[in-house]
Amino acid sequence: MIQNANRQIRLKQRPDGIAGPDNFEEAVEPLRQPEDGELLVESIYLSIDPAMRVWIDENPGYVPAVEIGSVMRAGGVGRVLESRVPGFAPGDYIQGRLGWQTHPTITAEGTHKLDLSLGSLEDWIGPLGTTALTAWFGIRDVGALSADDFVLVSGAAGGVGQMAGQFAKLEGCRVVGVAGGPEKCRYLTDELNFDAAIDYKAEADLATAVASAFPEGVDLFFDNVGGEILEAALLHLRSKGRIVMCGRISQTAAEERYGVTNTGLLIGKRARMQGFIVSDYNGRYDEARQWISKKLKSGELKQRLHVLDGLEAAPDGLSMLFRSQNTGKLVVKVADA
Amino acid sequence: MIQNANRQIRLKQRPDGIAGPDNFEEAVEPLRQPEDGELLVESIYLSIDPAMRVWIDENPGYVPAVEIGSVMRAGGVGRVLESRVPGFAPGDYIQGRLGWQTHPTITAEGTHKLDLSLGSLEDWIGPLGTTALTAWFGIRDVGALSADDFVLVSGAAGGVGQMAGQFAKLEGCRVVGVAGGPEKCRYLTDELNFDAAIDYKAEADLATAVASAFPEGVDLFFDNVGGEILEAALLHLRSKGRIVMCGRISQTAAEERYGVTNTGLLIGKRARMQGFIVSDYNGRYDEARQWISKKLKSGELKQRLHVLDGLEAAPDGLSMLFRSQNTGKLVVKVADA
Repeated sequence: MIQNANRQIRLKQRPDGIAGPDNFEEAVEPLRQPEDGELLVESIYLSIDPAMRVWIDENPGYVPAVEIGSVMRAGGVGRVLESRVPGFAPGDYIQGRLGWQTHPTITAEGTHKLDLSLGSLEDWIGPLGTTALTAWFGIRDVGALSADDFVLVSGAAGGVGQMAGQFAKLEGCRVVGVAGGPEKCRYLTDELNFDAAIDYKAEADLATAVASAFPEGVDLFFDNVGGEILEAALLHLRSKGRIVMCGRISQTAAEERYGVTNTGLLIGKRARMQGFIVSDYNGRYDEARQWISKKLKSGELKQRLHVLDGLEAAPDGLSMLFRSQNTGKLVVKVADA
Repeated sequence: MIQNANRQIRLKQRPDGIAGPDNFEEAVEPLRQPEDGELLVESIYLSIDPAMRVWIDENPGYVPAVEIGSVMRAGGVGRVLESRVPGFAPGDYIQGRLGWQTHPTITAEGTHKLDLSLGSLEDWIGPLGTTALTAWFGIRDVGALSADDFVLVSGAAGGVGQMAGQFAKLEGCRVVGVAGGPEKCRYLTDELNFDAAIDYKAEADLATAVASAFPEGVDLFFDNVGGEILEAALLHLRSKGRIVMCGRISQTAAEERYGVTNTGLLIGKRARMQGFIVSDYNGRYDEARQWISKKLKSGELKQRLHVLDGLEAAPDGLSMLFRSQNTGKLVVKVADA
């Protein structure tokens, strides 16, 4: 059933600190029929990711900025309504750069058909999507994960963190997650099998909490947060330790930038801090998805989707990420599958 | 001629900030004749290195602390006076852990005979010594130096820095050094062939100076200093840039610790910061020395030794390093060759 309007969320103005509803506006356009090489898609799930906060800065650096007045850039899964692309037919489920809109008309570039034998639509927006792939390549490749590592994960109850910690657990590591509040901490230990959780909201001193969790120190710190927890992990990093720089969700506003005073500890510890972007690994996504799919089917890998209802929930959803109000991968549901 | 006293510099008390004469005391002991497995040595050149400041902290981390009342740990070159070690004979020149003392009695462990066909005694305490090897493995292995890199070196007129910058120049890189004062900057550009030098004492804003020196950004930053210059380099680091964490000579006192606010830039830049210790590479020292010896003999590689006269000059020498008062590798000369 093709509806006759494409509802959109567009960027209205760039944020200073945390981004939210004030930075976006809704708009409605008529559906645009696809031309050659294009697909008309009905969005089902649209992603809300911390990286979006960077994309709406004036100079994101590694990708072009989202322009004022443009539809907000977002990945998502949806159903093809009309196709002018060979190999895609109405009814196909696809994943691509849909943007925050209900009925995008998109090119096939960056779009792929979903193999539902690997997992459900919810799996594809979750543990088979780029959020989980970020965790997979980050902790395994950038972090050089090994079975006897002591692993600390910050933002551990978020979309990337819940996966990174589980990937380390599945290798046999001792894994401790940092999250905000008792509910998230229980999620980590009771549902995801983390060895322990640190509730950063309840700890007077993160460095002491990290030292208690890892008396022998941390081999691998997967950091989604930055700032104080990064400094605490540096202090307790073991010799030849690795810090995977995945996100800095605590550091969105200039006035909130925490000065890390102990980067010099990397020297004597022979340790490294390394950043990465998941798309650098896009030639290896299939490998990761096959692995993840097996672990999902065996029940060894769990995930939680935090689903907001309706496109209009997306802007506030973005602010929830930075207020630590999500548990699991945050998405908006725009239509039924 | 064997003198009958071993003059020593011992650690008296641990420093808070910069270490200097107040932290050490002189002592005199009778010479101790070597037992089986030992050598009696006459020190000729003794090293003064930034790492010593870490060794006299209570918890250096990667090496045991120098104990209060002990002879200060130091590398050096000297001449064997008496030997109870097979393969070493009186008159042999050796390099080893002599400590700040005129006539150490040492074991053969960590001691090696000097191959004077590779270079002079001054070369062995300088560009064939661990200071230069630190630069060699740091910039080439840790930094993954490549010919088209834009290379920034801090502490560039110091013992490690002068070598690191030249090693990059010899690969064909554009190299800019950061040093304190016009004389050191002239040394870099006029004698060592650096492409440019930044006088940090004359610059109001280091980030602006780095941006001017490298309008396209920095691929490899070899950091001996830490703090503000590290932050500036992070800001102007290129995609897939590398920061070699070699030293943090600006950050010796707790109250001087500069908070680096932009480590999160590593993420989008897919960049890394990595620390190392030269002794991790000790199986490859010969390879590096062969390379360095050739470049010394061809005249392509230069070095400056900053020679202080007499053992008693060592404690103040250590403070000179942290006050940016040395140009080139700092040593004390204890005896004639």
